[in-house]
Amino acid sequence: MKIQLINPNTSAAMTASLADAARQVLHPGNQLLAVTNSAGPASIEGHYDEALSVPGLLQAIRDGERNGVQGHVIACFGDPGLLAAREIARHPVIGIAEAAMHLATWVATGFSIVTTLGRTKVIARHLVERYGFHQHCRGIHAVEIPVLALDDDPEGLLRSMRTACAGALERDESGAIVLGCAGMSHLATELTEELGVPVIDGVSAALKMVEMLGELKLSTSKRGDLDYPLAKPYAGFLQGFAWPALTPASSPL
Amino acid sequence: MKIQLINPNTSAAMTASLADAARQVLHPGNQLLAVTNSAGPASIEGHYDEALSVPGLLQAIRDGERNGVQGHVIACFGDPGLLAAREIARHPVIGIAEAAMHLATWVATGFSIVTTLGRTKVIARHLVERYGFHQHCRGIHAVEIPVLALDDDPEGLLRSMRTACAGALERDESGAIVLGCAGMSHLATELTEELGVPVIDGVSAALKMVEMLGELKLSTSKRGDLDYPLAKPYAGFLQGFAWPALTPASSPL
Amino acid sequence: MKIQLINPNTSAAMTASLADAARQVLHPGNQLLAVTNSAGPASIEGHYDEALSVPGLLQAIRDGERNGVQGHVIACFGDPGLLAAREIARHPVIGIAEAAMHLATWVATGFSIVTTLGRTKVIARHLVERYGFHQHCRGIHAVEIPVLALDDDPEGLLRSMRTACAGALERDESGAIVLGCAGMSHLATELTEELGVPVIDGVSAALKMVEMLGELKLSTSKRGDLDYPLAKPYAGFLQGFAWPALTPASSPL
Amino acid sequence: MKIQLINPNTSAAMTASLADAARQVLHPGNQLLAVTNSAGPASIEGHYDEALSVPGLLQAIRDGERNGVQGHVIACFGDPGLLAAREIARHPVIGIAEAAMHLATWVATGFSIVTTLGRTKVIARHLVERYGFHQHCRGIHAVEIPVLALDDDPEGLLRSMRTACAGALERDESGAIVLGCAGMSHLATELTEELGVPVIDGVSAALKMVEMLGELKLSTSKRGDLDYPLAKPYAGFLQGFAWPALTPASSPL
Amino acid sequence: MKIQLINPNTSAAMTASLADAARQVLHPGNQLLAVTNSAGPASIEGHYDEALSVPGLLQAIRDGERNGVQGHVIACFGDPGLLAAREIARHPVIGIAEAAMHLATWVATGFSIVTTLGRTKVIARHLVERYGFHQHCRGIHAVEIPVLALDDDPEGLLRSMRTACAGALERDESGAIVLGCAGMSHLATELTEELGVPVIDGVSAALKMVEMLGELKLSTSKRGDLDYPLAKPYAGFLQGFAWPALTPASSPL
Amino acid sequence: MKIQLINPNTSAAMTASLADAARQVLHPGNQLLAVTNSAGPASIEGHYDEALSVPGLLQAIRDGERNGVQGHVIACFGDPGLLAAREIARHPVIGIAEAAMHLATWVATGFSIVTTLGRTKVIARHLVERYGFHQHCRGIHAVEIPVLALDDDPEGLLRSMRTACAGALERDESGAIVLGCAGMSHLATELTEELGVPVIDGVSAALKMVEMLGELKLSTSKRGDLDYPLAKPYAGFLQGFAWPALTPASSPL
Repeated sequence: MKIQLINPNTSAAMTASLADAARQVLHPGNQLLAVTNSAGPASIEGHYDEALSVPGLLQAIRDGERNGVQGHVIACFGDPGLLAAREIARHPVIGIAEAAMHLATWVATGFSIVTTLGRTKVIARHLVERYGFHQHCRGIHAVEIPVLALDDDPEGLLRSMRTACAGALERDESGAIVLGCAGMSHLATELTEELGVPVIDGVSAALKMVEMLGELKLSTSKRGDLDYPLAKPYAGFLQGFAWPALTPASSPL
Repeated sequence: MKIQLINPNTSAAMTASLADAARQVLHPGNQLLAVTNSAGPASIEGHYDEALSVPGLLQAIRDGERNGVQGHVIACFGDPGLLAAREIARHPVIGIAEAAMHLATWVATGFSIVTTLGRTKVIARHLVERYGFHQHCRGIHAVEIPVLALDDDPEGLLRSMRTACAGALERDESGAIVLGCAGMSHLATELTEELGVPVIDGVSAALKMVEMLGELKLSTSKRGDLDYPLAKPYAGFLQGFAWPALTPASSPL
Repeated sequence: MKIQLINPNTSAAMTASLADAARQVLHPGNQLLAVTNSAGPASIEGHYDEALSVPGLLQAIRDGERNGVQGHVIACFGDPGLLAAREIARHPVIGIAEAAMHLATWVATGFSIVTTLGRTKVIARHLVERYGFHQHCRGIHAVEIPVLALDDDPEGLLRSMRTACAGALERDESGAIVLGCAGMSHLATELTEELGVPVIDGVSAALKMVEMLGELKLSTSKRGDLDYPLAKPYAGFLQGFAWPALTPASSPL
Repeated sequence: MKIQLINPNTSAAMTASLADAARQVLHPGNQLLAVTNSAGPASIEGHYDEALSVPGLLQAIRDGERNGVQGHVIACFGDPGLLAAREIARHPVIGIAEAAMHLATWVATGFSIVTTLGRTKVIARHLVERYGFHQHCRGIHAVEIPVLALDDDPEGLLRSMRTACAGALERDESGAIVLGCAGMSHLATELTEELGVPVIDGVSAALKMVEMLGELKLSTSKRGDLDYPLAKPYAGFLQGFAWPALTPASSPL
Repeated sequence: MKIQLINPNTSAAMTASLADAARQVLHPGNQLLAVTNSAGPASIEGHYDEALSVPGLLQAIRDGERNGVQGHVIACFGDPGLLAAREIARHPVIGIAEAAMHLATWVATGFSIVTTLGRTKVIARHLVERYGFHQHCRGIHAVEIPVLALDDDPEGLLRSMRTACAGALERDESGAIVLGCAGMSHLATELTEELGVPVIDGVSAALKMVEMLGELKLSTSKRGDLDYPLAKPYAGFLQGFAWPALTPASSPL
Repeated sequence: MKIQLINPNTSAAMTASLADAARQVLHPGNQLLAVTNSAGPASIEGHYDEALSVPGLLQAIRDGERNGVQGHVIACFGDPGLLAAREIARHPVIGIAEAAMHLATWVATGFSIVTTLGRTKVIARHLVERYGFHQHCRGIHAVEIPVLALDDDPEGLLRSMRTACAGALERDESGAIVLGCAGMSHLATELTEELGVPVIDGVSAALKMVEMLGELKLSTSKRGDLDYPLAKPYAGFLQGFAWPALTPASSPL
C-alpha cells in the first residue's frame, strides 16, 4: 500500500521531518510518499493561509491518485480542503486534526488541544464543532510560537509545550493532549512519557487510519455529496483544475 | 460608498444578471462594482468547486480593497472563503448564505432552504450549524437543477421553485424560504408574492448588510483571529498571494 | 419611511437620548418616531420588569402601525415582547439584542456582552441560546451599574465600561463587544475607537435592519406562528387589547 | 398547605373545570385556591395572547402570596411569566409545560406533545429548547381545535385526541404523550387507559411538584437572577405593579 | 404506598442513615423499605464500581416488585442501572441525580453540583448531557473526600462542603447547589440555611417524585424501549437474572 | 500483539462466527483471542440485558489483561461497560458502535444505522449523543429481527438488510451504513458491493483501531476519570470483583 503524506505548507524541511516520523509508524510493507505543497503559504496560520493551501493540496491528491497512491493524509491541523479532497479521491483521505481528535476520545473522556498561535484557535474550535467533539474537548491553548519557528529552539519548544500541556491538563481536567500542529509531531513520544498521559500526534494517527481503511477496503462514499465533482470548465490560472480533464501532473499550471 | 459584488463562479452572464438586480437595491448614492471570478469553476456545486473558487475570490477582495471598494459581497450560497476574505479586507465582507439565513430569522420563527442540487445540501447544512441556526432551519430541499441550467428554462424553473417552496413550507411548517443559490435571486419577488411569505434572496440581503455596516462605520475586528494575515512567502503558482506584498492586480500570476 | 423607536421603559430622558443618536444613523429621507413606554417599569432589570414592559410596548406597536409607521425597534436588550410584537405588526420589528448579536457575528468569530447588572445576565444568556449564538458568544459580563444610574456619572461609566470591555476581550478572546443595554448606546463610538474593536450598539444596528427590511420590501411572515392574533375578547384592565378591535390609540385604557 | 392554581386565561368555566380535577390530586390536608385571570385574553393561542396574560397572572401571584398561598401553578402550556412570577414569589411556582415535560422524561425515553392549534407549536418548541429536552421530545402535533372549543364537542375532542396521540406514538416512536393545553387535562386518565402509555397532564403534575417543594421546604433561590425585583416606580396603567409598593389586591387597577 | 430506597453500594450504615432521613420526608401513610445492595462495591467512585453495582440493584428492584413495592429510588448520584431498572419494574423508578437536577431547574436558572471525588465528575457531566441540563448546570466541583470517609469527620465535611458550595455559587453564578452524593443528604438542610440558597438532596427529591408518580397513577411506559425485557436464557453466575423466570428472591444466586 | 474480541452475550456460535471474520482483518503477526461472555444474557436487546452483560465482560477484560492481551474489543453495538473496562485495562478498549460511527464520519458526511429490534434504537440514539455524532447520524432503523434469529434465515436476513439499508440511504440522504449489531458483521462486504456505499462493520473497525493504538503505543489515559478503580471491598456474589485483589481467572465466583 502506497500512502501519501501531504504537507499543505511549502516547507520541504517540515515535510522531510514528518516523513521520517511517518516511516516509523507505517507497516513494513507500506510505502510512504511525502509531498510538499508546490504552491501556497510557507506556513498556515489563519484562514487566508489555509484557503490558499488548498489548490496545491488538491493537485497533490489528484497526482497521487494518478500515480497509484492508495490513501492520503492532510498534515495540517486545520484539515484544509478535506471534503474537497474526498470528492476527487477514490482512496481514503484523513486530516490530522480529525485523526487526533477522534483518537483522543478513545483514550480519555476529555482532551485539551495545544496549538501554535492564538489566532489559529478559532480554526480548531470550528473543527471541534464540525466533528462533534464539543463535549470532549475541554480547552484549546496556544504556546504563541509560529509554525516555522517551532524548530528554531528545540529545547525552548519542549519547555513551552511541557508547561502548556501540564497547565492544560490541570485547568481543563483533561486526560489527554492533542497536538495542534503537524510541526509538533516529534514531541508526542517524549511528552507522553513526561506527562504520563496520551499526547496525540495527528500525523501518526491519520497514517494509521488510512492504513486501516485500506485494509478494510473502505473508502469515501461516492453516493451523494462526496461523489466526484461534476464535469465543468475551469477558467484562468486554475483552468487546469477542470474536472475530470485535469491537466497532467507534470503540467506547469 | 463603493460596494463590490463578487460572483465566485466564472459566469459573466450570471454576474451581469446579479448586477442588474443589485443596482436596484443599493442606495442611490452607492456604486456597485460587479466582479466575475477570473479563475476557477464555471459553477459551484460541491466542495471541490467551492474550494477552488476561493483564490480568485480573494484576488477580487484584495483588488477591490486597493481600488477603493468599501464593502464586499460573496455571491455564492456556500459563502466560500468568507473568513479568509475577512482577514485581508479592511472593509466588511458578507456572504449570501449568511445574509439570507440571518434575515430569515428576523421575519419568521423557522425557515426552509431551497437550493439547486441535492449534493450541495450538505454545504448548506454545515453553514446552518456554523451560523447557529439549527433551531431555525426546518428543512433543506433541492430542485435538482444545475446552477448553470437555471436560466435555460425560466418558466420551468419558476414552476419547479414554486412547487418546491410550497412543499417545503407545508412539510417543514416554515414561515419563510431562503433561496439557496445566487442564480435564483431574480425569483425572490415573484415567489414572495405568489407564496405570500418572505422568499429571501441572499444577494440583496448581503448588499444591504454591507451598506449598513458602512453607514455604522463598523467592520471586521482586527483583534484576534480575523487580523490581517501574518507576513510570509508564498510559493509556486500562488506566490502572488504572499501577504502583504501581493502582486499588483494586473499581474498574470 | 417612518420608523418607530420604542423605549420599553418609561424614562423619557433615555428616549430623548436614544432619539438623538438614532437620528444620526437613519437615512436622510427617513423619519424617526421615538416613543416612551406609557406604562410599566422605570427601568428593566429582571424578568418581572421585562414582562411588565410588554403591554405598553404592544400598544406602541399597534399605535405606530395605525399611524403609518413602517418599522419598529424594541430598544431594550432583553428584546421584550418581540414575537408578540411581530404578530400584530404588518411591518418589521427588530429587537436590539437580536440586532447587536447578529451584527457581531458578521465582524468577529466571537463576541462578549457587557451589560448593566449581573442579575440581567441570565436574560442575555437565554437570548443567546434562542438566537443560536452559543458558539459565538464567549462571555457575558456586568458592570453592576443600574440602568437609570448610567447617566449619573458619565466619566465613571466610561471608565467602568472601558475596563469591563478590555477585560472581556482579554479573558474571552473575543473580537467584538456587544453593549448589553440601550442606555450604553452613546458609548459605542468612543469605545470602538479606544479599544480598537467593534463595540456594537444594538439600537443603531436595529434601526438599520428595519430600514433594510423596508427597502427590501420584506416583513414578518404571516404564514404560521407569527400570523395576526386570533380574534377574541380580552377582559379587565387589558380589555382594550382585544384583537382586532383594539381601543383607539388615545383611549385611557 | 394552600396552593394556588392560576388559569392565565379569563375563562371562569375552564378554571372551574381545572379546579375540580385539581382537588382530586392534592393531598387531603391541602387547600386549593383556583384563580381566573382578571385581565387579558379569553384564551392563549399565540405570543400576543401569552404576553398579555402575564400582568394579570403576576397580580394573582402577588395577591396569593399576600393571602397565605404557599405555592403556585401556572396553568397554561406556554408557561407564561414563569420567571417573572418566580421573582416576586417567596413560594414555589411551577408551569404546566415544565411539569409535564419533566415528568415525561421520568417514564419514557422519548415523548410527543399534542396541542391545540398548529400556531402554538412554536411556543412548545421554544420551551423544549429552554428546558433542555430536545433529545427527549420527538414530535409536536396539533389537533387544530381552538382552546375555547375544546369543550364544545367532548366526544369529537376525544376522538381527535385519540387519533392524534396514537399517530404521534407511532410516527415519533415515543413512549409517552404530553398534553399541550390545560384544557385537555380531563382527558389524561381516559387516554392513558386507552392508549396504554402515560398521557401526562401538566396541571396535575405541577400541583404535585408544588406540594413536593413545599414538603421539602424548598423554594425559588433568591440569590442572583430570581431575587425579588429591584424597587422602582412604575408608570401608567401599570403603576400598581411597582415593586415592592404594589397596590392592594383589591385595588381597581 | 410502599416505597423502596435502594442504596447501590453495600454500606449498611449509609443505608440506615439514608433511611432515617427518608422517613422524615415521606407522607405519613407511606412505608419505606430501605435496602442495601447485597452485591458489589462498598462505595461507587467510578465507572467500574458503578457498573458492578447494577446487578445487585436490579435484584433489589425485582424483589421489591415481588414484595409489593410501588416505587423505587436509586440512591447513588450516578443513577446506575436506571433504564434497566425501569424495564423490569411495573412501578416508577427515579434516580437521585435525575431528581436533584430536575428539581434544581424549578428553583433556579442555574445550578452547581458539588460531589465527592474529582474522578466522578465525568459521571455527573455525562448525566447532565443525558438529561438535557447543560444550559442549567454551570459547574461541577469536588471536595475530594471519598464516599465512605464522608462520615469520618462530620465537622470537617461540613466545613469543606460550606467552602465548596460557597465557592461554586460565586464562581458559577449559580442559584442552587445539587449535592453530588447520597452520603451528603444529611447536609442539605443545614447548608440551605447557611448559604441561603436551595441545597438539593436528590434522595429526598427522588422519594417525593416516586410518591407523586404513584399518586398520579403514572409509571414507566411499557410501549417501546422500556418495555419488559424479552424472554431469554441467562448463563453463568448471572443465570438467575433470566427474564421472566428470575430466581426467587431468596435464591443464593 | 494479542487482541481479545469479547462477545458480551453468551452465544458461543456467534463468537465463533465473529472470530472467523476477525482473523481475516487482523495483521498476520497478531493473535486473536475470541471470548464468549461466561455470564449474562444470551443476547442483548435492551438496557437490562446490556447492564447484565457487563460483569462477565469485565471479567474477560481482567482475565485478558492477566493473560497478556494487549487490546480489547467489546463486540456488542451498545458498547456495554466501555468506560468501566477502560478503567481496569492497561491496554486499549474499543467498542464496536464507537468504532463504526467514528469510521463512518471518515468516509461520508452522514450515515444511517440499521439495527435489529426497534427497542434497541434508543441505545444507539444515546450513543450517538454521547459520541457527538448527532450531526452525522441521519437516521436509525430496525429490521425487527432478534439478535439470535439473525442466522436462522441467511437469505431472508440479507433481503431484509438490503431493503432496509437502501431505504435508509434514500430517506436519510446518507452516504454510508453502520451495521447496528455484531451479528450482522458478515454482511458488510456483500452489502457494500451491492449498495455501492460503505457498509461498516464495527467489529472489524474496532479490531483495527486496537491494532492501531497498539502500534502507536497509546492507551487509555490513567490521569483522571479512567484511572484504575480505587481499592475497596466488594460484597456478595460479586465479591470477586474487588479491585485490585480480583479473584483468579479460574475462580468459580
